[in-house]
Amino acid sequence: MNNNPDLHARATALSQQVGSTRRHFLLGSAGVLASVPLLGLAPLARGEEPKSLPDYAAWKERNALIVHSTNTMETRRDAIGAGVVTPSDRLFVRNNLPTPPVDVVENADAWEVSIEGVRNPRSLTLAELKNMNVTSVTTVLQCSGNGRAFFPHGASGTQWSVGAAGCVVWTGVPLKDVVEELGGVEDGMSFITNTGGEELPAGLDPKTVIVERSVPARALETAILAWAMNDEPLPLSHGGPLRMVVPGYYGVNNVKYVKRVAFTDKETDAKIQASGYRIRDVGKSGAPEQPSMWEMNVKSWITTPLEKTHKGRNLIYGVAMGGAVAVESVEVSTDGGETWQEARFVGPDLGQYAWRPFVFATDLSPGEVRLVSRATSASGETQPKGRTDNERGYGHNGWEDHGVTVQVS
Amino acid sequence: MNNNPDLHARATALSQQVGSTRRHFLLGSAGVLASVPLLGLAPLARGEEPKSLPDYAAWKERNALIVHSTNTMETRRDAIGAGVVTPSDRLFVRNNLPTPPVDVVENADAWEVSIEGVRNPRSLTLAELKNMNVTSVTTVLQCSGNGRAFFPHGASGTQWSVGAAGCVVWTGVPLKDVVEELGGVEDGMSFITNTGGEELPAGLDPKTVIVERSVPARALETAILAWAMNDEPLPLSHGGPLRMVVPGYYGVNNVKYVKRVAFTDKETDAKIQASGYRIRDVGKSGAPEQPSMWEMNVKSWITTPLEKTHKGRNLIYGVAMGGAVAVESVEVSTDGGETWQEARFVGPDLGQYAWRPFVFATDLSPGEVRLVSRATSASGETQPKGRTDNERGYGHNGWEDHGVTVQVS
Repeated sequence: MNNNPDLHARATALSQQVGSTRRHFLLGSAGVLASVPLLGLAPLARGEEPKSLPDYAAWKERNALIVHSTNTMETRRDAIGAGVVTPSDRLFVRNNLPTPPVDVVENADAWEVSIEGVRNPRSLTLAELKNMNVTSVTTVLQCSGNGRAFFPHGASGTQWSVGAAGCVVWTGVPLKDVVEELGGVEDGMSFITNTGGEELPAGLDPKTVIVERSVPARALETAILAWAMNDEPLPLSHGGPLRMVVPGYYGVNNVKYVKRVAFTDKETDAKIQASGYRIRDVGKSGAPEQPSMWEMNVKSWITTPLEKTHKGRNLIYGVAMGGAVAVESVEVSTDGGETWQEARFVGPDLGQYAWRPFVFATDLSPGEVRLVSRATSASGETQPKGRTDNERGYGHNGWEDHGVTVQVS
Repeated sequence: MNNNPDLHARATALSQQVGSTRRHFLLGSAGVLASVPLLGLAPLARGEEPKSLPDYAAWKERNALIVHSTNTMETRRDAIGAGVVTPSDRLFVRNNLPTPPVDVVENADAWEVSIEGVRNPRSLTLAELKNMNVTSVTTVLQCSGNGRAFFPHGASGTQWSVGAAGCVVWTGVPLKDVVEELGGVEDGMSFITNTGGEELPAGLDPKTVIVERSVPARALETAILAWAMNDEPLPLSHGGPLRMVVPGYYGVNNVKYVKRVAFTDKETDAKIQASGYRIRDVGKSGAPEQPSMWEMNVKSWITTPLEKTHKGRNLIYGVAMGGAVAVESVEVSTDGGETWQEARFVGPDLGQYAWRPFVFATDLSPGEVRLVSRATSASGETQPKGRTDNERGYGHNGWEDHGVTVQVS
């Protein structure tokens, strides 16, 4: 699994230094056996393949995740919980390339990022960034393809259900402050183009594999260069030591291991931007003139109960987000969308880019119920009933597909 | 260490089920080797005794804690971080008695609490409470004796510096809702008296050891019966499966493993209430007429830098709390309190009972500086310069003692 001898030596030394490793794991981060999440996460079903976590994500809570592949792990719907923030060890993972070696987070402060397209371009170390300024922003991090599994045409890509999303707190320096320190943005720049620091596979045209994404320059108002997530140093699996965070934008725009931030007049011609992450009709190829997966849309889903529950009084939980603006309200239906009632948000409001857990108290009669939720954003957008079919299964926020059928007894 | 054969069997099964246990520990909850916290936690100094964590708290981050005893573990000042919420594995621990057996959290929903002094008293299981209602509140959890180490008279008890405090999110049912369900509080009840479910040591008068605390009945407005902390099931070490949380009150009033909630006309005569946790002059014994450690006071402290830093631009971090009301502002002085400048809060405001991390940017010249901070609450209280000496070293919020001397080079 781990073939890095330095890492192994350090690991052994640490193990000797700190002792009792097994109990730590067994008790989990909350000290509860098997780390059963808030709402009663079931263990793996008998017969389900216990696909193991890849080495770089071995610290994750296995029981909270569906391991699709080495680069894609989804948070189980019953592990999302009712919290305002997703615990790091339950957060989904989606990498486009293998991560850089672990020494980049071991020597985090030495990480360098090149700032270009500004009046005084230069490279800055993470140590320098940390002395410039600090802020914190809570955002929903969501893969463009979250909900892809609900498309009937079999959109290619990871078959995410609802769990390619989480809500986390980022800490870093506002990109705006960095840019001001370097004399401001050069004239005529319409995009911020961010490049990931992954090593590129040999023998391929770099343009076809590099993680390089452009976002509109207006994102300068809110973007931060983040070195911490959930108040801990940004882990390698989530882009540490340094990640570009663009609040309200789909995950792919939040470039990991960011090594270059360039203000540019055009979008990059890297494949991941030019033809990847583009909304187009089923059967069509991606092309630059199609809409890019930038700002997210309004969305919500039920997180409990999921399969069965008791008759009588129940609390129905879920999460709701506004996308690029705040979520204003969310309704719940216990009859598949015939009638709706407003649910109540639980916990503090962590700002417009955060999701809000919600709860709805109701009495359920024995039988089958179809629970659905429907959020409305501060700009007045309400989740549609249906989906917008598109080739790669992006941006699904239709409430009907996101509902759950529950047996009440 | 662990003599519970059932626990051991479960542990072994889990270990086999999930695999790769050592890497989980080594990578820590953020996936960073040795779990170095946000602000650069140093490893244990050479020669420092690596006192091990007690079994029930073995899941804690050892490098973040000072282990005073089996029942008392303090968060290191350099492990507090700049976050709005203290990660569970770094949170201090202070138990008055050994914890109940681990099966109480394994079978959490079966936990029973007796509600008394209401019109229709009865016992409720945690499963029943979870169906009543849910809310979330973020509070500073702080031991009454936090800062005791700064008293020159050698107050007896754990020598806490600043780390017997943290800020965590609680999830549970408002006590008020439970009481309404049971017909409301009986007339003439001035206190809420909460009893912990620990097994009492044999051979001692129960009154001298039981954890039973009374708080004024006005706390009914904000108290919650909490089953989760930081969005995970409440761990045994922090009072799981069920804890009474009284926002704005010192730790001892937040009774762990709560098995009885009684509305009473008088305070309990248990020793921990009658003579314990009372403010009195040095040399005096505790007595019921002395002020009880109920509502907390306004307080703040610097968290970084602590011993040395670089010359030039620095970001000085700390945390500030209002006590039982919100914190309004906080000032920092780099000359030991001669001159002050206002610092800036970082991150979202999680409500009046939460602390707020703050940051202050300044240029430091080579030499020695004395960094101090001074918070002011929403009710206009400002931290005093000095301390109020008292027998047991409770409630210290003087800014002078809480400052740090830092070498700048």
